[in-house]
Amino acid sequence: MTYCVAIKLNAGLVFLSDSRTNAGLDHISTFRKMIVYEKPGDRFMVLLTAGNLSISQSVREILQVEELKNPETGEGITIWNAKSMFDAARVLGSAIRRVYEHDARALRNDDVGFNVSLVFGGQIKGEGMRLFQVYSPGNFIEATDETPYFQIGESKYGKPVLDRVITPETPLDEAAKCALVSMDSTIKSNLSVGLPLDLVVYEADSLKSDKVVCIDQDNPYYQMLHNSWGQKLRQVFDSIEDPVWDDAHTDIPLKMPARRHATLKKIGTPQEKLI
Amino acid sequence: MTYCVAIKLNAGLVFLSDSRTNAGLDHISTFRKMIVYEKPGDRFMVLLTAGNLSISQSVREILQVEELKNPETGEGITIWNAKSMFDAARVLGSAIRRVYEHDARALRNDDVGFNVSLVFGGQIKGEGMRLFQVYSPGNFIEATDETPYFQIGESKYGKPVLDRVITPETPLDEAAKCALVSMDSTIKSNLSVGLPLDLVVYEADSLKSDKVVCIDQDNPYYQMLHNSWGQKLRQVFDSIEDPVWDDAHTDIPLKMPARRHATLKKIGTPQEKLI
Repeated sequence: MTYCVAIKLNAGLVFLSDSRTNAGLDHISTFRKMIVYEKPGDRFMVLLTAGNLSISQSVREILQVEELKNPETGEGITIWNAKSMFDAARVLGSAIRRVYEHDARALRNDDVGFNVSLVFGGQIKGEGMRLFQVYSPGNFIEATDETPYFQIGESKYGKPVLDRVITPETPLDEAAKCALVSMDSTIKSNLSVGLPLDLVVYEADSLKSDKVVCIDQDNPYYQMLHNSWGQKLRQVFDSIEDPVWDDAHTDIPLKMPARRHATLKKIGTPQEKLI
Repeated sequence: MTYCVAIKLNAGLVFLSDSRTNAGLDHISTFRKMIVYEKPGDRFMVLLTAGNLSISQSVREILQVEELKNPETGEGITIWNAKSMFDAARVLGSAIRRVYEHDARALRNDDVGFNVSLVFGGQIKGEGMRLFQVYSPGNFIEATDETPYFQIGESKYGKPVLDRVITPETPLDEAAKCALVSMDSTIKSNLSVGLPLDLVVYEADSLKSDKVVCIDQDNPYYQMLHNSWGQKLRQVFDSIEDPVWDDAHTDIPLKMPARRHATLKKIGTPQEKLI
């Protein structure tokens, strides 16, 4: 499995990926799922991959040479000369389709679906930052102010904290912290997501980043976050009062509790009719 | 979708279910997913159901008349005369198989799988409390001290808080609170899980319960829990310091960040080789 998350903020972009892959629970390996494409001062792009590892590795390889023809000029568009992130995302989609043509039938013969999902974001000089989620067919959607983040892989455990915290106004380092909490919850709940983590924080319009780090179990910040999040969640839980049951009692229809308002009340017990 | 959770503690049992069903996102309905079977002083049992509603309703219906033959005496065992929860669970499994014989082929003809999952727990006079998860084929597993709870339906969003809080020593009302927090996180993240909720709290060896309540959006305890959990989670998040980046800089191999220990450091940017 895999968990990757990318967040688009007014202040910049945050990318985080785990590095665990598994071919069955008895075959766990470590593969990085983040690639940074940078031409300082011109473009900064990050690709996160989930799904079939052979497909995502082939896509990354082919992406280096993939060209789309510009309909007017006829010249080739690559991720390195594309004038917009939209064009770069189309080059990526085209690379996925190239791998599909080459591998999909053979995979299908082995009952393996063509399964890959990617997040691709960054900034090219002359336009704003953009963040895309790219699907197996090579089509993609773009993040908006209403939905400023994308997840791929095991997304559910880590989603609630993103929904509670992330808005376009969230500061960069706070969003990085939120992504790490989201990853921590996922790692706690899914064995097939694991350290080390790759984290990139990109500041808007910088067209480069040196906030790039690999985080393993010895990283003191991640250790602190992991421990205090767990402890403090527990404190919050304890600080909420337990339900109070009063002694009000009501006859209720068979088979289901009556709908009660006001405080949590003891009410009569629904029963199946005895045969 | 559905979310149900049941917890087995030394002090008793907690059962919680939502009541939303959907046949496609354009067809949302409210159906209760909890049934209480009670013969005060003799047995108290609760059944939670998820999956295909027509199957679970048929199972509940047939369960009223289903009999297993006692191999020695040849007399019929029902959930109302079974001498152990294990036997009662076998009667339930047998009811599922009866529905399978009746409906599975017709469902398969329409490309609908025979999909039902159930949680069944309680206590019969003469033995301790027991909690089972029952699968579509009618087989089942039992909760243990190491795994004192079962979830069915949309289980992921609500799992982390259960893992952090629940042990066999957890007090009943605290476990009820934990189940409600788990439900609240699930409802927040999955539109197809919704109020009203059915909650039952059973005290060990009481062989009855009048702590049975239906919780809707007007329930002040649930409102309090919903609001304070959200606010306090946010406070905890804010109380954890943001990552600190220092200015250490290291040359690193192409394509991936170097593994760094110590604090979160700025390190050189991994780059794809330019073509």
